[in-house]
Amino acid sequence: MLEQMAAGWRHVFKLDPNRRLSDLSLEKVCQSGTDAIIVGGTDGITFEDIWKLQKRLRKYLLPCVLEVSDINAIVPGFDGYLIPSVLNTDQARWIHGAHLKAIQRYGCGIPWKQLLLLGYVILNPESKVSRLTEANAGLDEEAAASYACLVEHLFKWPVLYVEYSGKFGDENMVRAIRRQLKKTRLFYGGGITTRRQAETMAKWADTVVVGNLVYTNVEKAVQTVSWVKETNLQEKG
Amino acid sequence: MLEQMAAGWRHVFKLDPNRRLSDLSLEKVCQSGTDAIIVGGTDGITFEDIWKLQKRLRKYLLPCVLEVSDINAIVPGFDGYLIPSVLNTDQARWIHGAHLKAIQRYGCGIPWKQLLLLGYVILNPESKVSRLTEANAGLDEEAAASYACLVEHLFKWPVLYVEYSGKFGDENMVRAIRRQLKKTRLFYGGGITTRRQAETMAKWADTVVVGNLVYTNVEKAVQTVSWVKETNLQEKG
Repeated sequence: MLEQMAAGWRHVFKLDPNRRLSDLSLEKVCQSGTDAIIVGGTDGITFEDIWKLQKRLRKYLLPCVLEVSDINAIVPGFDGYLIPSVLNTDQARWIHGAHLKAIQRYGCGIPWKQLLLLGYVILNPESKVSRLTEANAGLDEEAAASYACLVEHLFKWPVLYVEYSGKFGDENMVRAIRRQLKKTRLFYGGGITTRRQAETMAKWADTVVVGNLVYTNVEKAVQTVSWVKETNLQEKG
Repeated sequence: MLEQMAAGWRHVFKLDPNRRLSDLSLEKVCQSGTDAIIVGGTDGITFEDIWKLQKRLRKYLLPCVLEVSDINAIVPGFDGYLIPSVLNTDQARWIHGAHLKAIQRYGCGIPWKQLLLLGYVILNPESKVSRLTEANAGLDEEAAASYACLVEHLFKWPVLYVEYSGKFGDENMVRAIRRQLKKTRLFYGGGITTRRQAETMAKWADTVVVGNLVYTNVEKAVQTVSWVKETNLQEKG
């Protein structure tokens, strides 16, 4: 089951099928010691680009999962599928609307055990994903913590994903969210470019996601693996 | 924990604090052999009315839970609290918006283990609750089944509540929903007035909720307990 697999992820890379990455860079990423590769992005995601990237990733033994963002770009053959549900939006289609359409299209063919639901809280109002999903991204700590509480205690979902998408996040905010979580796993993604930043978020997030840095400085991106893995996660709850 | 308690409910009565019920009728309801009393309604729900009804119910040993519909009318002292989340609406405030406000108001004081989340699918477009929540109540069987699939496999919530609110439901629809459920418990509510109706829904729903009939014909309402309990639930999944 994907949920059990993800419970062991401390560091993951997120690769965007719409961005170019040389074979050498891809090799470095895949041999970095990271726990898994997430394939996913917001813009211009096509079946063909995902399929091509998947083929290149298949050379390595690393678990590869697809974060599904478009019902028309679900490529078979991944080790699992991450299903985002944006929580801080007023638009039900980003909470469950697209999911219902996918269920109606694929029905019983969906391999449920290969799916992992991610409850997203998007905290960078300037990001594309925030504009796309009409997210209420300007939350204060208390409001952000209430989402964590909802996911942990009422929805009882396996993962809360704090998404700063391209911008490094506010440590106090991430800590406030983390304080509400016991069983729910915390993913953090956004703007990690330095050792200090990697260590900061690795204190509070179970899983640290590194994306952009792969495309701007692959050597440093590879270093984030040990920066994260050598940091002790703070006690939960 | 309320979830374990509710797993034993085959028949429950739903009492509306905004409707009158004589002491004698209340006694008949509470001594009917039903498994629990849900206090809840849509219209004119006040703290005081709930509190008064609770006081009257306290004479009996039956488990009494409050279905929370208004953040200003949460009366302490119930055996548990049902938290509805309407799924077939485009309005996020009925999915989780009011819940987030309640979390911000009550924060850590919330007794989470006494709460049970109910994923609602409202199927009577004429009902007050449907208009209030702007529900997309005119679903066909396939669409309704997709909500069941979402709740069972992706959200993994404990209960799906099929609400026909005052109108007796379509057996084919309820059966189509039930087919998608294994772990998620199915509650059915709406318009049961005859033995045949009680038996029909008791075949598909784990828990049958009887409400209006208490106010229109309490003798018959009491009979629904044995009608439901003597019906065999069809095998799941």
